[in-house]
Formats: sequence, C-alpha cells, structure tokens
Amino acid sequence: MFRLVLDAMGGDYAPLQIVRGGILALKEFPEIFLYFVGDEEKIKPILDREASSLKGRYEIVHAPEEVAMNESPSRVLKKRNSSLYVGAKLVREGKADALVSAGNTGAVLAVGKFIIGAIEELERPSIGVAFPNPKGKTVLLDVGANVDVKPRHLVQFAVIGHTYAEEILGIKNPRVGILSIGEEEGKGNELVKETYPLLKETKLNFVGNAEGRDIFNGNFDVIVCDGFVGNVVLKASESLGFAILRMIKEEVSRSFWAKLGALLMKPALMALKRKADFAEYGGIPLLGAKAPVMITHGRANAKAIRNAIKAAMDFYDHHFNDVLRENLKNLAGEVLNKTKNGNSNNS
Amino acid sequence: MFRLVLDAMGGDYAPLQIVRGGILALKEFPEIFLYFVGDEEKIKPILDREASSLKGRYEIVHAPEEVAMNESPSRVLKKRNSSLYVGAKLVREGKADALVSAGNTGAVLAVGKFIIGAIEELERPSIGVAFPNPKGKTVLLDVGANVDVKPRHLVQFAVIGHTYAEEILGIKNPRVGILSIGEEEGKGNELVKETYPLLKETKLNFVGNAEGRDIFNGNFDVIVCDGFVGNVVLKASESLGFAILRMIKEEVSRSFWAKLGALLMKPALMALKRKADFAEYGGIPLLGAKAPVMITHGRANAKAIRNAIKAAMDFYDHHFNDVLRENLKNLAGEVLNKTKNGNSNNS
Repeated sequence: MFRLVLDAMGGDYAPLQIVRGGILALKEFPEIFLYFVGDEEKIKPILDREASSLKGRYEIVHAPEEVAMNESPSRVLKKRNSSLYVGAKLVREGKADALVSAGNTGAVLAVGKFIIGAIEELERPSIGVAFPNPKGKTVLLDVGANVDVKPRHLVQFAVIGHTYAEEILGIKNPRVGILSIGEEEGKGNELVKETYPLLKETKLNFVGNAEGRDIFNGNFDVIVCDGFVGNVVLKASESLGFAILRMIKEEVSRSFWAKLGALLMKPALMALKRKADFAEYGGIPLLGAKAPVMITHGRANAKAIRNAIKAAMDFYDHHFNDVLRENLKNLAGEVLNKTKNGNSNNS
Repeated sequence: MFRLVLDAMGGDYAPLQIVRGGILALKEFPEIFLYFVGDEEKIKPILDREASSLKGRYEIVHAPEEVAMNESPSRVLKKRNSSLYVGAKLVREGKADALVSAGNTGAVLAVGKFIIGAIEELERPSIGVAFPNPKGKTVLLDVGANVDVKPRHLVQFAVIGHTYAEEILGIKNPRVGILSIGEEEGKGNELVKETYPLLKETKLNFVGNAEGRDIFNGNFDVIVCDGFVGNVVLKASESLGFAILRMIKEEVSRSFWAKLGALLMKPALMALKRKADFAEYGGIPLLGAKAPVMITHGRANAKAIRNAIKAAMDFYDHHFNDVLRENLKNLAGEVLNKTKNGNSNNS
C-alpha cells in the first residue's frame, strides 16, 4: 500500500479542491491510503459528504495552524502544528511514503529539505522542472532549492536529472548539459568552468555546455544550473508564456476575423496549453528527498491534485530513490568521492 | 553630420542585405554619412548598381579579412584587417560616430569593449535588451557582455538602464529592480544581497528585487543582473517564443478548422511577431561604449539594418553618453566613489 500525506490546507482553493483531488485519487487508485492533514473542522464535512464510500482508506490528521502564502520558510519551520509540518513529520517517521502540497513553495521546500531531508548520499535535494519542447521534454534543475552551489552539487543534480529523465520520463541515456552562455568548453562563469571537467569525468552522457535556447529546443534532455539561474528562468518562462497569450488575445480582439479565427483555433490552443500546463504533470518534484515530495501550483484544482498524487505514485513505483542511489555510485561515485572534503572548488 | 560605420561583411546575408540597408538609410536620412567597411570587390558593385545617386555620401573602406560567425573574440581582436576591427578603429579615431554590425555577437562585443571602449566613468559597457511587455517595455541588462560582476558594476548597469529607459524609450522616472528569486530584501545570491543596499543608497527609483516573472509583466522598467543570468534569460526567452509558435503550428496542422482559424488570425499573429521582433527595434545596443554600437541579429535583412542605423542615430541625437555621465554623477556618484578602490565587495 502506498500511503500519502495530502496537505489539505495549502493552495488558493484549499481545503475544498485539495480534498476533492484526494477523493478523485482514492476512487481511481485502489492501492493508496491518504492522510488528509489540516483543520479537521473544515476537512471532515467535505469527506463526510463526498467520500462516504471510502471510509477506512483515509485518515484525517488534525493540524490547525495556518501557513500564509507569503510566510518565510524559517517561520514555517517553527509552526509545529501546521498541516505542512505535521504532514512532513508523518513522512519522516515512516508513517507515510510521500507528500503532496499546493502550499507556498518556499514552505514546502523548507519542510522537504529540513524535516524530510535528502537521502544520505546527497547533500541537497533539488527541484527539477520538465519543460516541454517540440520533441519531448527537457529537465532543468535546480530551479530554486539551492541558490549558492558548488561544482559537486551540480554533479549530483546531473545524476538526479539523469535518473528523473530515465525513470520517470522514459528517456534512455539522456543527454546531459550544463547551462552556460556559449557552447564551447571554457565559456561561462567560474562555477560552470569548474564543474565542466567534473561532469566530463562522470559516466553520464555529458554533452557539454547548453545555452538558454537549449532549454526549449530539444537538444538536451537534462540541463543543470544553480538554483538562482534556474528559478529566474522558470519564472521568466511562465511569465513570458502568459504575456504571449495575453498579447495574442489583445491583437485578436482588434479584428472580427481574427476573433473568429481564434475561436476555430481554440481546441489547438487548448491542447498547447495543456502541454505547457503544470497541472497536467502534477507539479514540480523535490528530487532526492527521502520520500517523494510534489509541489503543485498554488492555483491547483482537484484534477491537479489528483495528478500530483499520481506523480508521487510514479516515483514510488519506480523505486526512484533506490535507482538514484545506484546511479550516484555507478555514474559519478569517483568524482563525488574525490570532491567530498570541501575540495569541490579545486577540482 | 552623423558619420556611421556599417560592417558590410557581418551577418548571414552580408554583404548584399547589409549594403542595401545602408542605402535605405542614406535615402531616408539626409544628415548621415556612411562608411561601408569590408571587401571592396564585393561591396562596390552593389553600390555602383543601386546607389549611383548617393555618391559623396558614403565611402568604401577596404577590409578584406573575414571573421567567421563562430570565431572566438580573442582571435577577432587579432584580425586587424577585418571589417569589424577596421570599423571599430574608425570610431576610436573619431572619424566615425557609431558602429552597426550584424556579425558574430561575441566579436562585436569584443571590439566594442576593447577597441572602442567604455566611457571613462564606467569600467564596462553593458548590453541591454528592451523586452516587450503588455504595458510597454522592460530593459534587462546585462545580457552577456559581463559574466562575473561586482556589486558596483550592477549599480553602473542600473544607471545605464535608467538612462536608456528615460532617453531612448521615453519612460519617465523608470522603476529599477535587481533580478532575484524572491521579492523581499535579503532574498537572492551573494551578489544580489551585496548590491541591494547600494542600489537603495542611489537616487535611482529603486523598487527592490524583481523576479523572473517581472521581466515580462510590466512591473519594472529596468532590471539589472549579471551577464550570465541575463544571457541565459535572453536566449531562453527567444527560444521559448519560437517553441510556442512551432507548437501552435503543429497543433493547428492537425485540424482543418484550426488551419482556417490560423489563417484568419494571421494578421494579429504577425502584429505580435513584429512586437517581439528585434529587427523592428534595430538590434541590441552596447550601452556605455564611447560611441553607439548596435549589434543586430545575424539574420538581419536590409530593413533591420536600416532600423539599427536609425537606433544608433537616436543615441547620438539624444547625446546619450553626456546624459549618462551626468546621471552616473548625480544619481550614483556617492555610491560609486565609495566602492571605487576594490571595496565593491564590502559595501
């Protein structure tokens, strides 16, 4: 049985849409058990009303403290009766196998990093995003969990990304790159220049420097970067996508024929939107945590939550962490051993 | 008279489209004089054929050596008979007032930085891009001229961006931000944390941290970052735009009605493409160089070259560098003085 913690209080549409997402998942996947963590007074009526047939397959864990969407991660770690904290503790204590939350990303990250923690072979977990490209997907990581990183962390991210691409996305022998500002070895900032030779030494399918354009053109399957650059790119890309759609709408509204055209194109545009929509994928995984942690969009609805639960199941079913451990040893063990004692800066 | 060097050999469609762009500008703007720099054997026949009425308003300067699109900047600086090198020298010697090139960006940058050079008040020139947003434009800089920078350089970029926004884009009292990964002061990497208080001390309209999304949503007029992050964002954004268009095309091709819809929407989509197209703006300026340097896209056609020449004229007509000097003194003089002697890291 797969036991999952659902943070019932996180997200713009909590608790109703979150709880409904959990109910969807319970109905669809008979092998799961859910902990609905949050304010019992608010959660119980929904479950009593809409999930009477599912008794015994879930448990409500009361956690009354609230975490605001803009609360700082350090404050969140002190709110021991919040749904996020209580939920993460259930995972840490081995009572649950995964965590899904639509709460404040920084807060989910904080409990993922500091309460659940990374597997012992890693110093840090990492957030990876699978960007759509015309040929498939490209995983970019880290996109925000780790701001100031050392070369050895980027090597770990590369193995994490490789494992994600191969196990979850089904990309065999993924092409791995490091984000830089020119194709040739030697281009980039200090971090890139120091990491490049280390990646070359690993047994990964390391292709070399990737440029910004390579995130969306399908030339790489995995691209590593520090969490500062990755986060900026992630937010800029989401925002650019919205801006383009808004500008299309504006231009379209100026002409009757264009409006008619937009109407006819709607199914195609919706298909595209689905391709680009995080809700379809179930959010962003915190990779390398001791148990799967899925961070969904704050705007997540029931369907997005169902998808996030499904995504967490995928990680569990693929024994993601076992494979990751093997890969860390087999693909980059030597490099990681060599750089272990703070020597990561002088490779 | 405004005397401009046109690098006739740079770009995918050189020399024909480049020379034709120069001819367009000569016909439209009676106050300019052009140096067509490049292989005389190739340039002269075009001019003889298509610009016989313009004699006396241009000069061909022979520069036979070729610079390949992928040639390293350090090699370019040794090619003293290349059009780029010869052209930059004309500017340095005061014989010309500006330079336009569609050549290899790294090469144009190299001659801009090392042959033309920055005005004496600046350590480094910077490349700024004016991204379109639904409300207007947002200037992001640096996008590639400077990879590893210090806080004081970001302060200089902020003043450069302010001046560009106010003088060239006509945005009064532009809102200036620093690119980071969270809104609150204290969020970001070391560089951001050190630069934030310096920017607060200037007399710029400093609004605080900007996030990736703010590049495209119109909340900021100027956003500064190091050239590594900026270059990644620039290339990722261009590429994402292309990917979205490609995916729209693909989705559309699956249905007759969608195809018809796309046809009806075409004028609206073209208007949008124009909005986002560098060719319309005349390329990317190297800001803070002793004379205006415009770097146009490698795919620049005659119209793009004409626009780049017009853009260089704008800088010249607005006495951009004089205003920039004033602004550096009046808006950030104290901060820049204070951080002058290598103390830029301990603000």
